[in-house]
Amino acid sequence: MTLSEIINFIKEKKNCLCVGLDPDMDKIPSFLLEFEDPIFEFNKRIVDAVADHCMAFKPNLAFYEAYGSTGYASLEKTIQYIKLNYPRHFLIADAKRGDIGNTSDRYAKAFFIKLNADAITIAPYMGRDSVEPFLKYPGKFAVLLGLTSNEGAADFQLDMGKEGELFKHVLKVSSGWGTPENMMYVIGATKSEYLRDVRAILPHHFLLIPGIGAQGGDLEMVFEFGKNKDVGLIINVSRNIIYASNDMKFAEAAKESAMNYAHQIKKYI
Amino acid sequence: MTLSEIINFIKEKKNCLCVGLDPDMDKIPSFLLEFEDPIFEFNKRIVDAVADHCMAFKPNLAFYEAYGSTGYASLEKTIQYIKLNYPRHFLIADAKRGDIGNTSDRYAKAFFIKLNADAITIAPYMGRDSVEPFLKYPGKFAVLLGLTSNEGAADFQLDMGKEGELFKHVLKVSSGWGTPENMMYVIGATKSEYLRDVRAILPHHFLLIPGIGAQGGDLEMVFEFGKNKDVGLIINVSRNIIYASNDMKFAEAAKESAMNYAHQIKKYI
Repeated sequence: MTLSEIINFIKEKKNCLCVGLDPDMDKIPSFLLEFEDPIFEFNKRIVDAVADHCMAFKPNLAFYEAYGSTGYASLEKTIQYIKLNYPRHFLIADAKRGDIGNTSDRYAKAFFIKLNADAITIAPYMGRDSVEPFLKYPGKFAVLLGLTSNEGAADFQLDMGKEGELFKHVLKVSSGWGTPENMMYVIGATKSEYLRDVRAILPHHFLLIPGIGAQGGDLEMVFEFGKNKDVGLIINVSRNIIYASNDMKFAEAAKESAMNYAHQIKKYI
Repeated sequence: MTLSEIINFIKEKKNCLCVGLDPDMDKIPSFLLEFEDPIFEFNKRIVDAVADHCMAFKPNLAFYEAYGSTGYASLEKTIQYIKLNYPRHFLIADAKRGDIGNTSDRYAKAFFIKLNADAITIAPYMGRDSVEPFLKYPGKFAVLLGLTSNEGAADFQLDMGKEGELFKHVLKVSSGWGTPENMMYVIGATKSEYLRDVRAILPHHFLLIPGIGAQGGDLEMVFEFGKNKDVGLIINVSRNIIYASNDMKFAEAAKESAMNYAHQIKKYI
C-alpha cells in the first residue's frame, strides 16, 4: 500500500483512526470460548463492526504469541480476513522488532511476505543496519519507535545528549535512512508537548500515535501540534474500543466506541 | 534455572559456549526437506550433535517467524525437545522484545510460560516498565541489549550523552531494575575494547556475547576483559557451527565445529 493510497483513504473517510487488535482470552466474551478459534472469532466480529469507522488495524504480536503457534495461526487468519474483506485498510503489525542485518532480513520476510502486513513497528536501538532490511519492500513501511507513550520513555528516550533528547537524535539520524514512503514513527499521545519538536524534525512523515484511550493522551493537542498537510497522523485506540463491553453485544459496543473516536477525529481533520 | 545452576554447569563442563539455532530452509541439507517438519529435524540433529560441547542454546525467533505459525510450531517442538533431553542447558529465546507494560506482560507469558524459555533478549529503548514484567519470574532472565555486535551499534549506542556513551547509561540505569539473578546483558564480541568499561559498571552480571564466528570477534580479548569470578560469559556462535557443512554429514561437521570452539574456550576458563 503506497503512501498516497493511505493519504487518499484518510481524506476520503475524514478519519485516521486505527483499531488495535489485542485479543486476550481473559477479556473476550465467554461465549466465544466455545469456538475452535476464539481469538479469530473475536477479531472477525470486531473488524466487521468497526471497519467503516477506522482506516487501519494494528494487531499487537504479544497478544498472539502468548498463545503460542495456535495464537500465531489466529493472527495469520485475522490478517487474511482483513486483507480479503477490507483491502484498503492499512495493516500495522505491532511487533517492535529489530536485530542485526541478517536477522532483520528474516523479520522483514516474516512480516511483509509471510504475514502480508503493510507495516511493522521497529525498535531503533540497534541502528541503521537493523532497520534497512525493512525499507526494501515497495509499499511497505517500517514504523520506528520515536517517543513512546509509556512512563519508561523518560529512562532513555528523553535522555539529554549533546544535541538534545535522544529521541530527537533518533528521529534526525534515522529519517535519513529512508523516506516518508517507507518510514513512519511512533510518537505517544501522552507526550504531545513534544509533537511540535517532532514536526520540526519530521514535517512529512506519518506518525502512529498510541496513548489515546486507556493511556489518557489528548486528541486535540495531538492534532494541533502533530497534523500536517497530509493529515500525517494515525491515531491508535485498542482497549477502549475492543473491550468497550464483554457481553453478547460486545461488537456493537466496539462499533459505538469507534464511531465516537471517529466523530472526534473528524472535527480535527 | 537459577544463576547458581548456570554457573555450576559452566564450571563442571569448563565451557560457556551457546549454540545459536537459526534454521534457514535455503541453507539446511536438502534431504531434510523431505520430512514433515524440516526445521525441527534439522534442529534435533544439531542439538544432539553439539549438546555435549555447549551449555546453552539460542533459537533466534526471526528464523521461525519467517515460516509463520508452522515455523513457530517448529520452535515449540525444538524447545520441548531440548528441555526434555538436555534439561541443564540454558535456553535463550533471542527475540529482542520490549513494549509498554501490559504488552511486555504478554511477551513474558509467551516466552517464559508458553514457550518455556529460560531467558529472552530485550531491547531497552522503552525503559523500565517495558523490562520489569520479565523480571517477575524466578529462575528466568531478561537479557538486555547493551552494546550490540553490528555496525549500527555506533548510530545510537555509542552516542555521547552527559555521562558518556548511551549504552553505558543503559547499563547503569537498567542494572538497578533487577539483579544478576534475573538480568543479563548482550555485549558484542566485535566491541571487546569496551568490555573493561562494561565490567566496571557490571562486575557481577552474566554477559551474552554474540559476534564470535561469522562476525569476527576475538575470543581471547573477550575473556581477558570480560571474564569474572563466575566466568560471567556466555559465548554464542550460530552460523559457523550449524552451517559448518550442508551435506549428509552436517551434524558431524557441526559437532566438530562446536568442539573446536569449546576447546578454545576451555583454555580461557
